[in-house]
Amino acid sequence: MGDASLPKTNILLAFYKEFPAVFYDQVRSRFSDAEITSLILPLGTPIPQEAARKATIIVTLGSLPKPEDAKHIKFIHFFSAGLDKVIHNPILTDSDIPVTTSSGIHGPPISEWTLLNWLAASRKFSITYEDQKKHIWGNEAYGTGIQDHVGKKIGILGYGSIGRQIARVSIALGATVYAYTASPKPTPASRRDQHYIIPGTGDPDGTLPVSWHHGTDKASLHSFLSLGLDHVVVSLPLTPQTTHLLGAEEFALLAANKPQGHRNPYLTNISRGKVIDQDALIKSLESGELSGAALDVTDPEPLPKDHPLWDAPNVQISPHISPLGDEYFVRSFDIVRENLERSRRGDPLINAYKRGKGY
Amino acid sequence: MGDASLPKTNILLAFYKEFPAVFYDQVRSRFSDAEITSLILPLGTPIPQEAARKATIIVTLGSLPKPEDAKHIKFIHFFSAGLDKVIHNPILTDSDIPVTTSSGIHGPPISEWTLLNWLAASRKFSITYEDQKKHIWGNEAYGTGIQDHVGKKIGILGYGSIGRQIARVSIALGATVYAYTASPKPTPASRRDQHYIIPGTGDPDGTLPVSWHHGTDKASLHSFLSLGLDHVVVSLPLTPQTTHLLGAEEFALLAANKPQGHRNPYLTNISRGKVIDQDALIKSLESGELSGAALDVTDPEPLPKDHPLWDAPNVQISPHISPLGDEYFVRSFDIVRENLERSRRGDPLINAYKRGKGY
Repeated sequence: MGDASLPKTNILLAFYKEFPAVFYDQVRSRFSDAEITSLILPLGTPIPQEAARKATIIVTLGSLPKPEDAKHIKFIHFFSAGLDKVIHNPILTDSDIPVTTSSGIHGPPISEWTLLNWLAASRKFSITYEDQKKHIWGNEAYGTGIQDHVGKKIGILGYGSIGRQIARVSIALGATVYAYTASPKPTPASRRDQHYIIPGTGDPDGTLPVSWHHGTDKASLHSFLSLGLDHVVVSLPLTPQTTHLLGAEEFALLAANKPQGHRNPYLTNISRGKVIDQDALIKSLESGELSGAALDVTDPEPLPKDHPLWDAPNVQISPHISPLGDEYFVRSFDIVRENLERSRRGDPLINAYKRGKGY
Repeated sequence: MGDASLPKTNILLAFYKEFPAVFYDQVRSRFSDAEITSLILPLGTPIPQEAARKATIIVTLGSLPKPEDAKHIKFIHFFSAGLDKVIHNPILTDSDIPVTTSSGIHGPPISEWTLLNWLAASRKFSITYEDQKKHIWGNEAYGTGIQDHVGKKIGILGYGSIGRQIARVSIALGATVYAYTASPKPTPASRRDQHYIIPGTGDPDGTLPVSWHHGTDKASLHSFLSLGLDHVVVSLPLTPQTTHLLGAEEFALLAANKPQGHRNPYLTNISRGKVIDQDALIKSLESGELSGAALDVTDPEPLPKDHPLWDAPNVQISPHISPLGDEYFVRSFDIVRENLERSRRGDPLINAYKRGKGY
């Protein structure tokens, strides 16, 4: 259909394989005012001239046009949250075509993965699972030690869209949340989530934490880890500063500040394996300093078959699958929809890559 | 210590075994103004005259004094939510001593059990669990089909303290909630939770559901089950009217109304096994009409070793352990604390048994 007063919108979807049919239906239902063309291209292959020249929006995981073929492009949208794989492409270095990312849509799956691991650990799900396989109705095996999250303290290192959705769910469980960021966030404006937000999720205004903490030095981190936390969630980027951010000293500090009657602190890592000193983690799990750990990331990945981490006490390891979900790509198109509106209104795009800043 | 203007409060705790030391500390910290005496008595044994006559509050799982020994008792508090085991005791039938229950404190553990099961099913936790045992880093095993709860519809049959806490967490996940009760709840007052509420949990004012539905006839139930629900949670009491409330017809209706692109409906039972027609449930799981079921209760209990339910597809069975938690008895004392205040002020007690009404 399309409004005659608007230039025709042509969305080119470049991906390395076919999506299921229901995906195309869901995307088309969001863009009754646009033409959508789908192109299957091996990962990283440039977009052919003819296809690029017809498009006004490109949606891609890595295939890009040449800048000279992109004159009509209003913006290029990436399915990924980061752009590290294309950072040296001429589109990013030699053009000013707006580039947008899928930041902000990882909160629901990763927070659900986090919660699943917390609850599987705290409610001794392995007993349930193993007993069912053996047809055992055995309620005595659970003993004491099951605790829920009412009144528990959740410390979140890195308060982006993922940390915010974990905060939201934690508070619904009756817990309280403490946020930690590298730079100070003293004002309401600085606490707002700047990225795309899935409606009804997250903490758009940053009002959920009891308190905000910050710093890049050990003293600041240690003061945060001394708050009496029951959970520490690592959801910050891996940088030279965050490499081995948490090690023996930090785990000891967490344990020393554990509230009376609570289980020992529990560690969750959904960032990158190297943020944690893995050898120290194994020791803290063995000593019981940490009551457990949920790790969707390890160092290295894949974790070698003979690595001792696999069998450390109370560790739950998954193979970097926390963001998985059927909804991912459709939600990425929700960002395209939002930016199409913004582009038509002449408003700044959301999730826009800032050239020169590197993100 | 105690305020000299108040009569001395003597709390008698009658239980069939010792609690851990930390429990007595936690209780004493709540009652610095009262004397607390602990009595170990086999379940159901009457409270001896001497102990009963010294007490002003009794806290018990089933041991009761004779009415003639209970002249100084302000109220008797039960650790259980129901009173079915003592309903014919003279204290209930032949005295007007206020009796209070522990209704309202089951929300956090049972909602966490519910969430754990939803997420273990939806995020294919059995793959994670089995692969870790074998040291397999296998992210390809997950395939498609993982969906999170954003935009999902949760139907809750029986909107008490448990259903309300499930609602609270569901909404934090990005889902919407639909409440179903036997009697109509048309006014704000009728939607309020009348029982004790753990601070920061539940839905005290009943404002979380998108809509409220009611009825005791099939037509009302069927119209509720046709809303396009992704989850149905059974948290209503077992009565002649609710026996086999959900069977073949209801499961078919749920499946027929499933939203496009969503997984088939998932059933959660935290009430009593007999609310569900279990043979019909097995068939619906086998046909895929239901995508899975989480059952903390079965018919009968314990579920016999050779029962086909154990191995029905996508069923998760636990041995009636969803309310377990170290916090249970301390929280029950929070209700005693609240009622001690109310009793001193002359206000009506919360969770008070209504003689003649049978609850």
